[in-house]
Amino acid sequence: PSRPPPASCDILPLSGRAIRYLSKRRQERVQLIGDVLRREGFDLVLLQEVWSERDYSNLKAKLGGCYPFSHYFRSGVIGSGLCVFSRFPILDTLLYQYSLNGYPYMLQHGDWFCGKSVGLVVLKISGIVFNVYVTHLHAEYCREKDAYLPHRLVQAWELAQFIRHTSKAADVVLLGGDLNMHPEDVGIRLLRGWTGLRDAFAEATRFEGCEDGCTLVPKNCFTVKSELLPFPLGIRIDYILYKAVSSFTVKCEELKTTTGTAPGMDIPFSDHEAVMATLCIRRQGQAADTTLGTSEPTLTDVVTEARTEVAVGLRAAQQQRYSTGRMAVLALLLLLLQAAAALGALAGLAAGQPFPKLSFSLLAFLAIGVLLLATGLHLFHTIEVKMLQGTEEQMRMALRALQERP
Amino acid sequence: PSRPPPASCDILPLSGRAIRYLSKRRQERVQLIGDVLRREGFDLVLLQEVWSERDYSNLKAKLGGCYPFSHYFRSGVIGSGLCVFSRFPILDTLLYQYSLNGYPYMLQHGDWFCGKSVGLVVLKISGIVFNVYVTHLHAEYCREKDAYLPHRLVQAWELAQFIRHTSKAADVVLLGGDLNMHPEDVGIRLLRGWTGLRDAFAEATRFEGCEDGCTLVPKNCFTVKSELLPFPLGIRIDYILYKAVSSFTVKCEELKTTTGTAPGMDIPFSDHEAVMATLCIRRQGQAADTTLGTSEPTLTDVVTEARTEVAVGLRAAQQQRYSTGRMAVLALLLLLLQAAAALGALAGLAAGQPFPKLSFSLLAFLAIGVLLLATGLHLFHTIEVKMLQGTEEQMRMALRALQERP
Repeated sequence: PSRPPPASCDILPLSGRAIRYLSKRRQERVQLIGDVLRREGFDLVLLQEVWSERDYSNLKAKLGGCYPFSHYFRSGVIGSGLCVFSRFPILDTLLYQYSLNGYPYMLQHGDWFCGKSVGLVVLKISGIVFNVYVTHLHAEYCREKDAYLPHRLVQAWELAQFIRHTSKAADVVLLGGDLNMHPEDVGIRLLRGWTGLRDAFAEATRFEGCEDGCTLVPKNCFTVKSELLPFPLGIRIDYILYKAVSSFTVKCEELKTTTGTAPGMDIPFSDHEAVMATLCIRRQGQAADTTLGTSEPTLTDVVTEARTEVAVGLRAAQQQRYSTGRMAVLALLLLLLQAAAALGALAGLAAGQPFPKLSFSLLAFLAIGVLLLATGLHLFHTIEVKMLQGTEEQMRMALRALQERP
Repeated sequence: PSRPPPASCDILPLSGRAIRYLSKRRQERVQLIGDVLRREGFDLVLLQEVWSERDYSNLKAKLGGCYPFSHYFRSGVIGSGLCVFSRFPILDTLLYQYSLNGYPYMLQHGDWFCGKSVGLVVLKISGIVFNVYVTHLHAEYCREKDAYLPHRLVQAWELAQFIRHTSKAADVVLLGGDLNMHPEDVGIRLLRGWTGLRDAFAEATRFEGCEDGCTLVPKNCFTVKSELLPFPLGIRIDYILYKAVSSFTVKCEELKTTTGTAPGMDIPFSDHEAVMATLCIRRQGQAADTTLGTSEPTLTDVVTEARTEVAVGLRAAQQQRYSTGRMAVLALLLLLLQAAAALGALAGLAAGQPFPKLSFSLLAFLAIGVLLLATGLHLFHTIEVKMLQGTEEQMRMALRALQERP
């Protein structure tokens, strides 16, 4: 309420929230989020996990007055869950789907079905061009044995590359979303180092909210307490990152998170705490070179570390490609054997009826089933191998470029 | 041979060729292409349909001397087939996979398995930044009843959007590849209109090669003659497009295509004729505004036409989503019915053995098979519907922006 209008002082509050599709009391919470967004009157709102397009339409209808511009990014079977509400006109959009995003057969995790992506919206506020990115990376289901780490690293790398290539004409770059990485994780260091984006939590002049800026906290009634046992304060996995690419400076004046339940209610807005930033953007005399965020020797280490993890994932994927291929070949051999036996029986070579018909046909169906399934998995792991190889090679190229610099 | 070096006069020859993976005499032709590329010494070579990574490695080993820089874009099950050879250092690369690319069950067409994409390489030649794009869009198998037109239009739109968003800091933009569209097709007009790219064939000062610049000609012994019956001269589906985005001008001095068989050989290099361009890039005093290639009222018509085609594809996809969903539900009902009957028989409700065991279990397996298949197809068509909806909405946004301009 005490915030001056952005046209005069270039302030941009930003908010990210998450809504689980199958979660408890979803409708009530969407309602609640709509109320708060209307009351607070942010300039820009980035939402993740709005899986239901109907929820988006409801929010859009409700918020049309204060956020006349909005965009919903469609992708995957369920949807990317990403959407943007803005007080300022959205000039252009682009969606980039990550090439790896978990496994379709891990139904209990379901990330594959969301078609995880990064969405870009281009805005112009007071003559300043903003490239705003919203994203949601693959979840981490088990920190000790994180099978999805290579996929998340590929996503972090593709996110960084996408930002670098698309933001060259922007004055200010903003990234908000659920990155599913702890602040010290290699993926975050890679993303920050390779794009030059800065972390609003680390830079903020004032901070108010959960301790250490955590966004997944035990006191939120929708979080799974057992997962947070090693982290009594919670973890910080939702971020607002930013940089100015031309003759501008960005400063985070204030960062806030929500803390548990909504005011006057018994439930929180979401299972993640929302992050809100007030940014101050100023024109400055000379252009600052902020292409790389980390000093180059450190960046070399980070890229090397990421590349090692991708290589580990690559070996696992190659192993799975091999074993699914072998399974498919075995099933095919069994089928051929059965076909030969059946032909033999038909030709009268085997006297009597050596195979009981029922178990014979059951076995044939089983073999066909295994053949189809193993072939599908083999194709999937072939794609996985290709994308991991591609990322590893890109990282190698990046390392060479870093080392060749004077 | 008479070409002066590009450092002094900014000339850039460009060549695109296609190699079919399962094609006749592939090895011999890869060999032939390597020989020609080494002899001619182009500055930049863009290849499509190099499906085999071994072919790429062989070419790379052979061409290392004259093209020290190269990149192979990995994607899909088979691969994107795209690669680039360059005399100048490749500074950066990015791959964008099209969100729609045919159907996995159309095995005879197989486009889905290639993971069709657009590859970007960034080069700096004499201080000029080149964004070079290489791509291969979905094939057209039947011009009269082109079931893939909506997918190809989504690809053309995504290609145009990708180029617009990533080329903002480039001085010169080049696009080369097999677009699988005739010059007057809506997809080409959309791509050219929305990006401002110009067609080297239309702009070339000198032209030499197949009549009308055709690249798929009946006299090439690898083409299917019956497909080209309505087009006695052949068709032009491989393009070199370009534009200068800042204070530069590009002029196509010369455009050539190969014509049938390779010199001194009985076979052509490829089933498509190669296109070679000599471009002259000059620095000019003031920046020209070339954001849109077509005058705006015409562009509005083109986007409207494309949107109509996408909407037709959307209705077909929704229909298929519905019928596959219904099929899955029917299969599930049959399974439940069978389960009830089996339970009934077990409980001794039905005296005797009403169902022959063999046909009962065969039916159950059939139902499971149909259920799995129909569910898979339903998910696939759900994704298709989402992407077509997303593209249609982006086109609607673009139309609104075009109409609002003064």
